[in-house]
Amino acid sequence: MASPISKILRKNKDGYKVAGTMWLEYERERFFGPGRVELLRRIEQTGSINKAAKVMKMSYKKAWEMIDALNKQAAMPLVIVKTGGEHGGGSQITKEARELIRYHDALRKRFIAFLDKETKKLS
Amino acid sequence: MASPISKILRKNKDGYKVAGTMWLEYERERFFGPGRVELLRRIEQTGSINKAAKVMKMSYKKAWEMIDALNKQAAMPLVIVKTGGEHGGGSQITKEARELIRYHDALRKRFIAFLDKETKKLS
Repeated sequence: MASPISKILRKNKDGYKVAGTMWLEYERERFFGPGRVELLRRIEQTGSINKAAKVMKMSYKKAWEMIDALNKQAAMPLVIVKTGGEHGGGSQITKEARELIRYHDALRKRFIAFLDKETKKLS
Repeated sequence: MASPISKILRKNKDGYKVAGTMWLEYERERFFGPGRVELLRRIEQTGSINKAAKVMKMSYKKAWEMIDALNKQAAMPLVIVKTGGEHGGGSQITKEARELIRYHDALRKRFIAFLDKETKKLS
């Protein structure tokens, strides 16, 4: 079947790609998307908000605000912040945060399948 | 069936929404998305790049760059710019541009159906 816009596209049809991004909103505000999910993953890996922020080249303040928003928009905490102790604080993500990451990954997979299907229709 | 992240979501589940945006790329550069499609529509309505830019609160330069990119990335012109004449120039979109708008609208409809389905799964 010809592409719905085959006349408009150049001969190098493989160069075209349907792309997109998605996120979850809570009351019209961003709840989580690729950035926040990556932050949760980095905290899980490093055990530290500070280290996670550094890996993602963002300020501690920005990372903290993202976590604060996540914790407030969810029904339960997603990141547990520990403070004090001999080696300073440390942070870890909750079981629920891991569920959220799993959900995000599955949703992303379905989204990519949708985009791939639309891209194939073009060629 | 319970939501995949029901424990994480607040009781007001109607407040959550899976949202997103999508576009078409050509060789990893934006080809068209909601902004460029709106610009084409406004040019069709007003017969003028200048008027279309004003409606969209963007500079003439920005509008021109968007059209130039569209025309270069497509296999044929999408906007025909007329210059000179008693009342100055005027612009119109081609039949192919109208096909592109139709394709974009249909694609957007499928995308919204996808997002709605994912939003329903949450509640």
